[in-house]
Amino acid sequence: MHAAIIENLIEKFEQLPGIGRKSAERIAFHILEHMSPDEAAAMSACITEAKSQISLCPVCQNLTDCAPCKICSSSKRDASVICVVESPEDVSAIEATNEYNGLYHVLHGSLSPMDGITPDDIKINELLLRLSDGTVKEVIMATNPTVNGTATAVYISKLLSPFEVKVTRIAHGIPIGSDLEYADKITLIKALEGRQTM
Amino acid sequence: MHAAIIENLIEKFEQLPGIGRKSAERIAFHILEHMSPDEAAAMSACITEAKSQISLCPVCQNLTDCAPCKICSSSKRDASVICVVESPEDVSAIEATNEYNGLYHVLHGSLSPMDGITPDDIKINELLLRLSDGTVKEVIMATNPTVNGTATAVYISKLLSPFEVKVTRIAHGIPIGSDLEYADKITLIKALEGRQTM
Repeated sequence: MHAAIIENLIEKFEQLPGIGRKSAERIAFHILEHMSPDEAAAMSACITEAKSQISLCPVCQNLTDCAPCKICSSSKRDASVICVVESPEDVSAIEATNEYNGLYHVLHGSLSPMDGITPDDIKINELLLRLSDGTVKEVIMATNPTVNGTATAVYISKLLSPFEVKVTRIAHGIPIGSDLEYADKITLIKALEGRQTM
Repeated sequence: MHAAIIENLIEKFEQLPGIGRKSAERIAFHILEHMSPDEAAAMSACITEAKSQISLCPVCQNLTDCAPCKICSSSKRDASVICVVESPEDVSAIEATNEYNGLYHVLHGSLSPMDGITPDDIKINELLLRLSDGTVKEVIMATNPTVNGTATAVYISKLLSPFEVKVTRIAHGIPIGSDLEYADKITLIKALEGRQTM
């Protein structure tokens, strides 16, 4: 049996996504055995600090330490395109490509009637508000290609039909560098349907 | 690009064992998006608290919040046997079996001349001190079956030869539930060498 405070520390890490009991133990013992008191204090301070300083951008709903966020307030970004994603991680992933220069809108989830997640639970109204002044010409639906993500994309695209915006969906198909024979059936069907002239 | 404070939080988690860049991002976003301020504060407090309250047991050198630790001070444990392990995690693993009732000694590492880890860098002297009063009758060497762990076991067993104690080594062989054909050669050799009459 661990001392109660060690057990408590292990449980705190076990709550985090992707961390099982074994990893949580390893992390807790790492902190206790190998971190200096200063390093542990810095880690602890960083959590509270980040939590208090980070909020949602009032425009795109991404996590930010200033309002509006750096992307929304940048004069270098193309304000006529909004890419709609489910989570802040998706923004990071697209930004890492260095190929997209428009704005974002983070829904913070996807519609899931089974889990009781309705349009009011995700940031759909906030997206509609951004379309009222006519600046936006295209909305790219980049929700995940899951049942819920696709349903969300379809639902939002219907809501957007009264607005003068082009609504597009990111392409689905065979990932680059992978092998055709290992692709699942639905991806293969999508890849055939989405074929383009060379 | 993330806000600096988010990046900082990601880096803090990236330093932990078994956490890569991607997992660290996922954890940081989980804290920022899904944890309540109270939960984040509790996590943060738990780290500093554990770090300040936990120290090494003066007897067995395991991590503890009281001195001597619960195992060392328990009247129900067999004080005539000491099981020598490399790390506090090993104590947890053996305790989880509920089959061992003796005491422990945590070395906090293993001898590794290549990395400059000499006998003075691990808790060997502290072990020798525990043998002076003649209570201990057996020392079980349960260091890892690696090159360093085995060398450490051999080194310590030689140091113990002047004392009136039996020195034993945990058995090596085919793990229960695994397949003989997938066992590596050395394990198989050890399993044959360590064969016992049925």
